[in-house]
Amino acid sequence: MAGNITGKMFQVTTFGSSHGKALGAVVDGCPAGLELSREDIQAELERRRPGTSNITTTREETDIIEVLSGIFKGKTDGTPIAAMVYNKDADSSAYEPLKNKPRPGHGDYTWTSKYGIYDYRGGGRGSGRITIGHVIGGAIAKKLLKLLKINVISHVTQVGDVTAKHVAYSLIEEYASQNPVRCADQKAAAEMEEKIMETQKKGDSVGGIVETLTFGVPAGLGEPVFDKLDADLAKALMGIGAVKGVEIGFGFKLAHATGSATNDEYYLDGKDIKTTTNTSGGIIGGISNGMPIVTRIAVKPTPSISIQQKTVDLIKMEETEIKIVGRHDPCICPRLTVVAEAAVAMVLADHLLKAGFINPNKIS
Amino acid sequence: MAGNITGKMFQVTTFGSSHGKALGAVVDGCPAGLELSREDIQAELERRRPGTSNITTTREETDIIEVLSGIFKGKTDGTPIAAMVYNKDADSSAYEPLKNKPRPGHGDYTWTSKYGIYDYRGGGRGSGRITIGHVIGGAIAKKLLKLLKINVISHVTQVGDVTAKHVAYSLIEEYASQNPVRCADQKAAAEMEEKIMETQKKGDSVGGIVETLTFGVPAGLGEPVFDKLDADLAKALMGIGAVKGVEIGFGFKLAHATGSATNDEYYLDGKDIKTTTNTSGGIIGGISNGMPIVTRIAVKPTPSISIQQKTVDLIKMEETEIKIVGRHDPCICPRLTVVAEAAVAMVLADHLLKAGFINPNKIS
Amino acid sequence: MAGNITGKMFQVTTFGSSHGKALGAVVDGCPAGLELSREDIQAELERRRPGTSNITTTREETDIIEVLSGIFKGKTDGTPIAAMVYNKDADSSAYEPLKNKPRPGHGDYTWTSKYGIYDYRGGGRGSGRITIGHVIGGAIAKKLLKLLKINVISHVTQVGDVTAKHVAYSLIEEYASQNPVRCADQKAAAEMEEKIMETQKKGDSVGGIVETLTFGVPAGLGEPVFDKLDADLAKALMGIGAVKGVEIGFGFKLAHATGSATNDEYYLDGKDIKTTTNTSGGIIGGISNGMPIVTRIAVKPTPSISIQQKTVDLIKMEETEIKIVGRHDPCICPRLTVVAEAAVAMVLADHLLKAGFINPNKIS
Amino acid sequence: MAGNITGKMFQVTTFGSSHGKALGAVVDGCPAGLELSREDIQAELERRRPGTSNITTTREETDIIEVLSGIFKGKTDGTPIAAMVYNKDADSSAYEPLKNKPRPGHGDYTWTSKYGIYDYRGGGRGSGRITIGHVIGGAIAKKLLKLLKINVISHVTQVGDVTAKHVAYSLIEEYASQNPVRCADQKAAAEMEEKIMETQKKGDSVGGIVETLTFGVPAGLGEPVFDKLDADLAKALMGIGAVKGVEIGFGFKLAHATGSATNDEYYLDGKDIKTTTNTSGGIIGGISNGMPIVTRIAVKPTPSISIQQKTVDLIKMEETEIKIVGRHDPCICPRLTVVAEAAVAMVLADHLLKAGFINPNKIS
Repeated sequence: MAGNITGKMFQVTTFGSSHGKALGAVVDGCPAGLELSREDIQAELERRRPGTSNITTTREETDIIEVLSGIFKGKTDGTPIAAMVYNKDADSSAYEPLKNKPRPGHGDYTWTSKYGIYDYRGGGRGSGRITIGHVIGGAIAKKLLKLLKINVISHVTQVGDVTAKHVAYSLIEEYASQNPVRCADQKAAAEMEEKIMETQKKGDSVGGIVETLTFGVPAGLGEPVFDKLDADLAKALMGIGAVKGVEIGFGFKLAHATGSATNDEYYLDGKDIKTTTNTSGGIIGGISNGMPIVTRIAVKPTPSISIQQKTVDLIKMEETEIKIVGRHDPCICPRLTVVAEAAVAMVLADHLLKAGFINPNKIS
Repeated sequence: MAGNITGKMFQVTTFGSSHGKALGAVVDGCPAGLELSREDIQAELERRRPGTSNITTTREETDIIEVLSGIFKGKTDGTPIAAMVYNKDADSSAYEPLKNKPRPGHGDYTWTSKYGIYDYRGGGRGSGRITIGHVIGGAIAKKLLKLLKINVISHVTQVGDVTAKHVAYSLIEEYASQNPVRCADQKAAAEMEEKIMETQKKGDSVGGIVETLTFGVPAGLGEPVFDKLDADLAKALMGIGAVKGVEIGFGFKLAHATGSATNDEYYLDGKDIKTTTNTSGGIIGGISNGMPIVTRIAVKPTPSISIQQKTVDLIKMEETEIKIVGRHDPCICPRLTVVAEAAVAMVLADHLLKAGFINPNKIS
Repeated sequence: MAGNITGKMFQVTTFGSSHGKALGAVVDGCPAGLELSREDIQAELERRRPGTSNITTTREETDIIEVLSGIFKGKTDGTPIAAMVYNKDADSSAYEPLKNKPRPGHGDYTWTSKYGIYDYRGGGRGSGRITIGHVIGGAIAKKLLKLLKINVISHVTQVGDVTAKHVAYSLIEEYASQNPVRCADQKAAAEMEEKIMETQKKGDSVGGIVETLTFGVPAGLGEPVFDKLDADLAKALMGIGAVKGVEIGFGFKLAHATGSATNDEYYLDGKDIKTTTNTSGGIIGGISNGMPIVTRIAVKPTPSISIQQKTVDLIKMEETEIKIVGRHDPCICPRLTVVAEAAVAMVLADHLLKAGFINPNKIS
Repeated sequence: MAGNITGKMFQVTTFGSSHGKALGAVVDGCPAGLELSREDIQAELERRRPGTSNITTTREETDIIEVLSGIFKGKTDGTPIAAMVYNKDADSSAYEPLKNKPRPGHGDYTWTSKYGIYDYRGGGRGSGRITIGHVIGGAIAKKLLKLLKINVISHVTQVGDVTAKHVAYSLIEEYASQNPVRCADQKAAAEMEEKIMETQKKGDSVGGIVETLTFGVPAGLGEPVFDKLDADLAKALMGIGAVKGVEIGFGFKLAHATGSATNDEYYLDGKDIKTTTNTSGGIIGGISNGMPIVTRIAVKPTPSISIQQKTVDLIKMEETEIKIVGRHDPCICPRLTVVAEAAVAMVLADHLLKAGFINPNKIS
């Protein structure tokens, strides 16, 4: 398996699996002199941690982060920052019966095809638990973004058929933090919560949409052909498990539209050039234009459901049925908010370094 | 500007701009011994070339490809394949008045922010014309895919409000080739064509959706964390100008769905393991499962419209208006079909080499 | 700091510093199904560990390796292999007086120039101790090489003015393991040991040469232009601290020679094509030819000496003198043998994967 | 074949072969706003061009560079700079008899092993002629270096047994340009010239050493572990055909030395920190220290000699003999001076961008 390293200047390598010994990440390319503590990373992990509300998996993990290297006297010293979490509550027994019977919607079959071997315990490295590595990378990236007053916020805008109403950008962070669904529209949030619990009772799961807003990105970020800013964001977001669609700005709505209705026209706001609308989601021609960056991801229903499903026994090569027990989130969207923020933050940190907005050697 | 190189094992470097001297690509990493001719590349360029129907730009370019290196006695010899097209019909006069007045929806402003300098003639390297480089890379990638009997097909499924009906997969290639819109549903195709011509008369433009289907991809392609197959496809597709959304399989529809309704269950088709449905679009856990790979892109309306638009004069720093004349496609979807195929083919060729399905040294 | 990741298909990320919490590596891209145990890695670390003879530093480190991920039921499972060692015997007190007074020959000054901050304790990440990461990567690479019966052996051929006589290739591994200097010529080994101890008594240090021989590499490894096999070996070897020169085959001797005397002529050995001589060290035109690969590195004297040296106080900006106490190897060559093997093994594993000699997904 | 792309931020892709249609390079990552003309590149190619003196090959190539993209109104516009040279005087007839009989010392056999196919005409892509691509990249890199007043100079210090005396650094550029051997010691230059001509008469060839000096590099360039500045220089220099050894600073001399004799001590030169000696060649701990960077390469005798040599007929699989006619340089050192400069300049440009010394977007 390759492909566990992301970024060009801000490079994050992640490792670990659901029921293995530990999970973690190594961040290479973070400039020296950045104030960083264990707590900065822990705080982001807390937002991702399971067992914090009645709508998440009951697996309990304290997820205490241990920083192995890269911080010296409260600041990064320019060397790689390695951080990890030991797995504690790993109950593998529920997975034994599923050993050679791939769960529909999960990577069991494709991973077995590829590697011949598969750590079936808790989904192995296909588990959502591996996003601990993303969140470590994201936590450090966010500290870099803060130097430029860039703020990345995710919220849930849809769960199944429940859609959130538009909330003013300035209120989203606060409002979304007030409910376990992380939806800024409180009324919709209540309905979403109900929807999720109802789905869970049926042993089923449900999909949704997570929107990520980034404020304060300067114009000029992104490379104009293959490594466009939106292309890199699309890769990072589609690279999160369970994500099956990515939009920038108005996204698929633009397929129905005309140029005269959706071209973002320019105007002067004092000395700043802005656009009257933001259908492009802050990125034109692959490069940021200074407006908020808006991305949206389609999250599929968690494939782990406790309803009988058809599959194939890979040893006996005969059709069979399975029923997944284990512990799972009926809707992964709320917890994915912090992962989406991490993905966006890592891409932005990488591009800020590549485009020279942050000195790659040291923060001065 | 960096970021004009894509791929890890099958690496494509592109260069050139709309009104510069030439446009082209260098493909590094193609195994030796692949039968390849100038005509193979030319044939794909013909499908992308402007001026071939009444719904594309009137710019006339013969786009004769010249192969500079890498082919020896009818086969690749393992060395980089460089190919290019000289620009012929480059009329820059229409762009002079727009020099410091960024066109809404175009990269003029963001590129100027980044580089300080901007080749405003015909959109410079922000022009759709640069996809000649993509198509060169795609043509060679397709030849590699053919060794494994992999076939990549794009068709237009939506133009503005006109949506194509579902057509059997086996008929799409043939049907889509029978009309200039490249839509497999002939009735919808006619409506789309009308829609496009009507839009053009108004000096406006319209968006749409291009779907790409890939048949014959073996299970086991893709890396499971950051470099997932769908993540790399998302990057490649979002990296095409005018694309603002990417879906794999059911994409955004999954946000509304439940796991019990959309998990792809496994069954045996003789000795082959298949899924009863394909909501995942052939990719689960970042790795191909042997089912058709289905991607869909949201294409925004061409930003070049001949309707008056508001902008800012970057020299005088005052608000002003512009009207774009030039020559443009009122709907870029039909011509993007071949570019989307190229993007998908390059990603697949790269992953086939990375996963050892094709010997990176020589075809034997 | 970037640049702590090496390789393209077999990618090794290292982290940690001399007196920090831990040191380790993450190996990404190792195929699944490779038999691998904690002991395989520990065995290589033992060969690198200090305190094992009277000619190495007296720092005592047990260097017990902990494998955090990537091994499942005695085999690699395709996921990243993370392994680390906690630092134990880190005595930082000796370094306090040197804080702002760069030691001649060490990276203190250059690192401070770059990062503004410097973990002066034990040389920080500039310490030889960071080669633990190299050795972890090398241990895993060697397991891959063994599948193809490739064997990498280093020995010391020079210490100061003492030069080893030529020993038959087949005897070098055994003979070199019989003395602490790791020199295959026992007589020279004794002189080298004496030389090292004598130098140490004077508080001085001495340089030397380490030769690495690799047997069993098939013809056809290496890319012919920038990523030549010898170019990648040169980078990996020059990337080891204290190395200031790299030779392939006859190296600098070829500067004095004529083509007629040194061209390696071909002959048939049964059905195998071989060369009568091996001045090219097994690599011609950047690609392996099947003959033993021979590399040689020039190792400078350990810069840490306990003789008074001139330097500059970076705070007061005035000239001053320092005397280094700490604990150091008077000649680093013997311990570098295992690091040179690791560097060569990682390059070869990477190229074997790139050239398709090893299936990147799984060992079957 | 992969590996024809070098650099991370300043990325050079090269293509073409000795007797193919064209040779060239694409430079991606050069900031916008750099003054650059066709003549800047042509001037460097002139220094590399064959047929300019009686000690080089008689092949006559005008090597007229054509710039295809990336320059707009006399400056780089941030887009990739593609440039190429058409092959003119390609006489392939001499190579037909050698078709399946690999020339000793050349890549014919190894390339055939790897690719199964081999463009035997003039050495194909294994020819020294492919360094046209290096020189294009180097010419552009040098323009970037000039912004920081960095100067890269190569000279020949040895040809066979003739060794040049030390010449003051300030005189080397001027003196070396006064003779066809490019040796700064005029007396040695005359002997070298004689040596080369004498060797040529015998149908033989001779090796030598090229030293490259770089003045004006600021302290702080290079990454401290795998991507050390000296490691990248070693890769770039060893990646030039015919190079079999690389030294930094005192190189192999340090193997004989003691730390007390060779540690570079620090002193103050006004406000600048310098070292009293420069045994480290301007790089310590992988990072530049502000002193001149000194590299030296061992160049093997040109393998093409017109003396009878033993080889194997790869089709008949029997031993045979060949005599190479063709046109070749009896000593490649003089022409390699400009290639070595190019290699060093590309590495430095890449590191200057990576370390933030040059704004990657635009020169302002």
